[in-house]
Amino acid sequence: MFIIGGGDRSPELISKMIETADLSKRDYIVVLPMATAEPEASFEAIKTQLSAVAKNNIYSFNFAGDKVHDRGWLDSLAGARLIFITGGDQSRFMKVVLNTPVYDAIHKAYTNGATIAGTSAGAAVMSKHMITGNQLLDTNYKETFNKLRADNIEFENGMGLLDSVIIDQHFIRRSRYNRLLSALTAYPKFDCIGIDEGTAIIVKGKNITVTGVSQVIRVADPENVKVGKDHLITFEDLRFSLYGPGDKFSLK
Amino acid sequence: MFIIGGGDRSPELISKMIETADLSKRDYIVVLPMATAEPEASFEAIKTQLSAVAKNNIYSFNFAGDKVHDRGWLDSLAGARLIFITGGDQSRFMKVVLNTPVYDAIHKAYTNGATIAGTSAGAAVMSKHMITGNQLLDTNYKETFNKLRADNIEFENGMGLLDSVIIDQHFIRRSRYNRLLSALTAYPKFDCIGIDEGTAIIVKGKNITVTGVSQVIRVADPENVKVGKDHLITFEDLRFSLYGPGDKFSLK
Repeated sequence: MFIIGGGDRSPELISKMIETADLSKRDYIVVLPMATAEPEASFEAIKTQLSAVAKNNIYSFNFAGDKVHDRGWLDSLAGARLIFITGGDQSRFMKVVLNTPVYDAIHKAYTNGATIAGTSAGAAVMSKHMITGNQLLDTNYKETFNKLRADNIEFENGMGLLDSVIIDQHFIRRSRYNRLLSALTAYPKFDCIGIDEGTAIIVKGKNITVTGVSQVIRVADPENVKVGKDHLITFEDLRFSLYGPGDKFSLK
Repeated sequence: MFIIGGGDRSPELISKMIETADLSKRDYIVVLPMATAEPEASFEAIKTQLSAVAKNNIYSFNFAGDKVHDRGWLDSLAGARLIFITGGDQSRFMKVVLNTPVYDAIHKAYTNGATIAGTSAGAAVMSKHMITGNQLLDTNYKETFNKLRADNIEFENGMGLLDSVIIDQHFIRRSRYNRLLSALTAYPKFDCIGIDEGTAIIVKGKNITVTGVSQVIRVADPENVKVGKDHLITFEDLRFSLYGPGDKFSLK
C-alpha cells in the first residue's frame, strides 16, 4: 500500500509510488475517482502526474450506479498492478463500493500483489474502521475536533485492507490529534496513524516506511483508558512516535 | 499554584481556587492585570467571581511604569495569600515584571506559602521557559502551529515558578499539540502540560491535581529525538497521558 496524507503531491512522491508498484511494461494503472464529485478533473490531475514518470496505460473507472457490475471493468480492476483512490469524501467512496464486486476486486488485486494507493479520503478508506470526519456529539463539521470525548467519533466500514490500523490524513497541518486520539480510545489495541500532507506511508505487511516532505504520527497502547462524566476520556502513558521521511517502523 | 487553562471559569472552579489558597479572614487577594490591555475590566470580572465566594479584601495592582518600585504595593504583594494573574498576553506581563522587584515579591509570596494563580497568559507565565505563542519559522500568528519543526517555537523568560515544566493553555479546544510537542523537543527532559479551557491544575510540589470541566495533557520522555531536513522533528515513544477532573499525577 502507498497511503498519502493529502495535499500537494511532489513529483518525487509520485516517483516513489511508481517505484513501489514495481510495474512491468504491460502492467496498467487504475484510478478510482468515486470519492470525489469531480471525477474527471481528479483523474486528469493524477494522470498528468503519473504519466510524467510511468509509460503504462492509465484508466479511470468511475464505478457509479450499475457500473459496479461491469464485468470488463471488474476484471481489469482485479488485474491492475497499481490502484489509485483519489481524494474527496471517504463515505461517498464506500457508499459506491461496499458490498459490491468492486470491493472484492480491489481485495483480489491486493492479494495478488498490486499496490493499493490513495490520498486523503483515499487514505482514510484503507482502514476497516474508517473515520468519516463526522462527530456524534458535536453536529458541526470541523477539520479537527474541539474535544476529547468517548462516543463522539463516527466510524463507517472502510476497505479493511488494514484491519487493526486506523488512518487519519492532513494530520499535522489540520492538527487532528483530538480526532485520532478519540479513535484510539475507541480501539485501544489498534495502531493509529496520522499522515501529514505531502507525505506517505509505504506499507508492506507489518513494515512501514515514511516518504515525502513531512511527518507521520503513530499512537498506540494507551493504559488505563477510562471514560468519565460528560464522556471525558482519560488514559495514561500511551506511546506516541513521530517519524520523518526515510524512517521505518513496525505495526503491532 | 492554581493554573487555569483560560476560557470560562465556573463558580466551582473559583471555589476550588479559594479552597486551595486556604485564606484566613485577615488574608487578602492581589490581582495582577498587567497581561491585559484592559486591566480594569479584567479586574472587575475576576473580583466579581472571587467576592461571591470569599469575603477577603481584593486589590488590583497594575504595576505599570514607575509602579514597579512602589514600596507599599510591593510589600502588599509579597504578603498576599492569593495572587491571581489575569489573561491577556504573557509577553506583555513579563515585560513589566522581569528583572524588577515585582518578580521578587511574587517569588517571596510563593516561598511563604501563597497560592499563585493565573489563567491563560497568567498560566503561561508560570514556566521558566515561557511559550510566547510566536513562531520563529512561520511569521503569521496562529492559535496552533501548522508544523512540527525544531527551532520554530519562541520562548521568553517567564516567572519560573515551575522550572522544569512548560505550561500551555486553551489546549484541547485550540488543538495546541504541534506547539507543545515543539516545546517538549526543545526541552526533552521537561514535563510539558497542556491545560484545556475551564480546567485547572493544582500544583503542590511535585503533585498535580486536575479540577474543572475538561482535561489536561502531559507529554514527557521522548526517546531518540532527532532533527532532520527542513527542521523536521522526529522521536519515538514519548509518554502521553490525558487526565480529567479529580485525577492526580506527579511531575518528574
